[in-house]
Amino acid sequence: MAETEPKDSPKDSIEAADSHEPDIYGEDGAVRSSFLARVGAAIADRDVLFLRAHVGHLHPSELGHILQVLQPEQRQALVQLLGEEFNFEALTEVDEAIRLEIVDALPNEQIAEGVQDLDSDDAVYILEDMDEEDQEEILAKLPFTERIRLRRALDYPEESAGRRMQTEFVAVPPFWTIGQTIDYMREDHDLPDRFSQVFVIDPTFRLLGAIDLDRILRSGRAVKVEDVMQETRHAIPATMDQEEAAQIFEQYDLLSAAVVDENERLVGVLTIDDVVDVIKAEAEEDILRLGGVGDEELSDSVFSISRSRVPWLMVNLLTAFLSASVIGLFEATIQEMVALAVLMPIVASMGGNAATQTMTVTVRAIATRDIDIYNASRVIRREAIIGLVNGIIFATVVGLVAGALFHNPQLGGIIAAAMVINMLAAALGGILIPLLLHRVGADPAIASSVFVTTVTDVTGFMAFLGLATWWFGVHH
Amino acid sequence: MAETEPKDSPKDSIEAADSHEPDIYGEDGAVRSSFLARVGAAIADRDVLFLRAHVGHLHPSELGHILQVLQPEQRQALVQLLGEEFNFEALTEVDEAIRLEIVDALPNEQIAEGVQDLDSDDAVYILEDMDEEDQEEILAKLPFTERIRLRRALDYPEESAGRRMQTEFVAVPPFWTIGQTIDYMREDHDLPDRFSQVFVIDPTFRLLGAIDLDRILRSGRAVKVEDVMQETRHAIPATMDQEEAAQIFEQYDLLSAAVVDENERLVGVLTIDDVVDVIKAEAEEDILRLGGVGDEELSDSVFSISRSRVPWLMVNLLTAFLSASVIGLFEATIQEMVALAVLMPIVASMGGNAATQTMTVTVRAIATRDIDIYNASRVIRREAIIGLVNGIIFATVVGLVAGALFHNPQLGGIIAAAMVINMLAAALGGILIPLLLHRVGADPAIASSVFVTTVTDVTGFMAFLGLATWWFGVHH
Repeated sequence: MAETEPKDSPKDSIEAADSHEPDIYGEDGAVRSSFLARVGAAIADRDVLFLRAHVGHLHPSELGHILQVLQPEQRQALVQLLGEEFNFEALTEVDEAIRLEIVDALPNEQIAEGVQDLDSDDAVYILEDMDEEDQEEILAKLPFTERIRLRRALDYPEESAGRRMQTEFVAVPPFWTIGQTIDYMREDHDLPDRFSQVFVIDPTFRLLGAIDLDRILRSGRAVKVEDVMQETRHAIPATMDQEEAAQIFEQYDLLSAAVVDENERLVGVLTIDDVVDVIKAEAEEDILRLGGVGDEELSDSVFSISRSRVPWLMVNLLTAFLSASVIGLFEATIQEMVALAVLMPIVASMGGNAATQTMTVTVRAIATRDIDIYNASRVIRREAIIGLVNGIIFATVVGLVAGALFHNPQLGGIIAAAMVINMLAAALGGILIPLLLHRVGADPAIASSVFVTTVTDVTGFMAFLGLATWWFGVHH
Repeated sequence: MAETEPKDSPKDSIEAADSHEPDIYGEDGAVRSSFLARVGAAIADRDVLFLRAHVGHLHPSELGHILQVLQPEQRQALVQLLGEEFNFEALTEVDEAIRLEIVDALPNEQIAEGVQDLDSDDAVYILEDMDEEDQEEILAKLPFTERIRLRRALDYPEESAGRRMQTEFVAVPPFWTIGQTIDYMREDHDLPDRFSQVFVIDPTFRLLGAIDLDRILRSGRAVKVEDVMQETRHAIPATMDQEEAAQIFEQYDLLSAAVVDENERLVGVLTIDDVVDVIKAEAEEDILRLGGVGDEELSDSVFSISRSRVPWLMVNLLTAFLSASVIGLFEATIQEMVALAVLMPIVASMGGNAATQTMTVTVRAIATRDIDIYNASRVIRREAIIGLVNGIIFATVVGLVAGALFHNPQLGGIIAAAMVINMLAAALGGILIPLLLHRVGADPAIASSVFVTTVTDVTGFMAFLGLATWWFGVHH
């Protein structure tokens, strides 16, 4: 593996792709169009030599990027042309729709061959979305131990630590010396591709502790494993939700952690790279939910996306009719003073925005556990004050402008009063609704927006039109 | 460090806190109130013994959690009572406002003592937010090499890899053997606390490559370092933005990466735990920006939060007035048919929601680089079709309901037509505006919402009221 080519190898030519410094990405971080065009031409020409030399040896994530940007027919052709050289790990780097499209077109035989070379966590990632029948057929073609391992992981629930774990790990007994441990690693060729900890287990596979590799390297050969191992404080139960496991990794800065079954027996290892994916995915999920979309991907079909967005729009429609019915209560007042119709969206819109600000902060604080029983009441009070302060500021601005525009200072006063009321309602709705949803076990990210804007729309129209009806009714 | 107590140590008692299995967290993941009450009492009683035994030895992140939930006066008292036992690393786990509050109250002498025990990245994290004067005073009190290291990191721009790197690393020459390398690690006591790679450098500190620790452990003692090292493909320039560095970590599943200066000399190492923090922070930032809030923290003051939210509300106010002026154009029509005022928010609100869906997906796709020159036009076309399909679905529903409610089928037809127009505008605005902002170098997350909802409000009111004016004007 000695690689000591000069650093100044040609960076811009496509030829660089099979030196060990490929540069398939342009300045903007996207795959270079020149490279992509060359790959496309090679696929069209069935130029297997070029593809194996320049595409087959890319890092799996790079190959994944290429697959992602190719046309569907090109993807199939590329996988076929690469044949045994195709690294199935690349499939863990593409959207689910693309992954399924590729594996559906492949014979199960070839998939079984391909996943055998992978770490078990990657193999599971590819298998878990396939239909039961294909899954079984592929598993049946695998060697016994491999099959048992994958099936064990697949038996754990989706999004659990057991599903994400890698079943390959290094484990030694506590009475070994560091020297024995190092010798074992030098001799055994069935070690995982990469690892950062050695686990210590008893004869029944019960987890006793772990030693980080840097600690092994720092210890003398004669030192006993049990004297340098650290008792495991953060063993992850296989059934634990992946998000919770990710939080433990994050809090304790772990690189890997033992996954244990219900009898505290070591069954696998969760590694930081999988956890990083989980952290990204969970943040992503929150963003999409706040925006009222499910976990759609760019490669999903128009039909499935359209359908997945309808429920949210439907809920919004119902709340929009609710707001409309509030306006309907004041038809007579509006008819007499059309300025109200002109101004009323301002009150609602400012409330909606202020509420969205508060809600966003609250949803995040709940997700990161920054908000808890110790500070909830303080935070609620604080948001109320902020709502009131900003309400007064904007009430003044809007009141003066509206009063001047319509040459009606009373109208200015009424919209100002309505603004203060609605901004306060916005602050309280923005914090209380997510907290309440969280309390009853719902995901605050998914449902807060719709409730919160309903509150501000209804309160806004009601306060503004109600005050106007009362005031001008009395002073007519 | 042999820790082989039985696993069934009392889990629920506070006494467990100084065994090595503290259980300061309750079922809900928050700090147990019983533990917190005990700590509060110990602070009030100045019970140094208890605090050192049960709080001083907690993991820094746990101590950070405790600090976060204590009252401000309690925080100061706790740090003071722990004295030299206070682990400054805990300060990297609390909000910026709390960190500044604590360090501002401490003598610079004590801070200098405290940061000396930390890895350089943690020390920099604490120092970087302090004011220049204090920073200089603290640096001046540090030993020479430590001072040089920290100053070097602090000289790199904020949010750069150089700022986040750790300047402690293990580096060996290429002609050493694996045996020599292991012996060196066994003897040198000035190694970083944790590391997962050994770097290979030439006499001028130019980076030649790296070896993962598992590879060292698998290689025989006689093997030469240069024969097992991997040429570094992903050396991170110290000036690279931390977000870009995080993307490299993520793509290539790195645990650590060399940070090099402009002469390709090794100056530090970036580790995955810091990168995880960056990934979290960047996702967080996007969520908050989409919600129209800056990077506020729960511990910020009412005044600073209120002020930071005003600009966004002000922008929204201007766009609200713009929408209002559109309505103003049609005052005469509304006066004649108040039903229009009742129904118009439905058109605007549905458009706003549909646009937010599209915008959220687009902003995320831009952030994760899932959208690029290869698929942009396809994605735009797809969103337009989805907008049209969902527009027709909801136009039908709204048209029928509105027509029935107001016993006016013509009104139903008009609102349906306006809905289709606005949902299409929503889809196009939702995707084109973020893409355009990204193209001109602006952050699409920060400004998209306001532009997008302006488009749907203006289009919605204009289409609905305009169509109504034209139709009923002609057919009156």
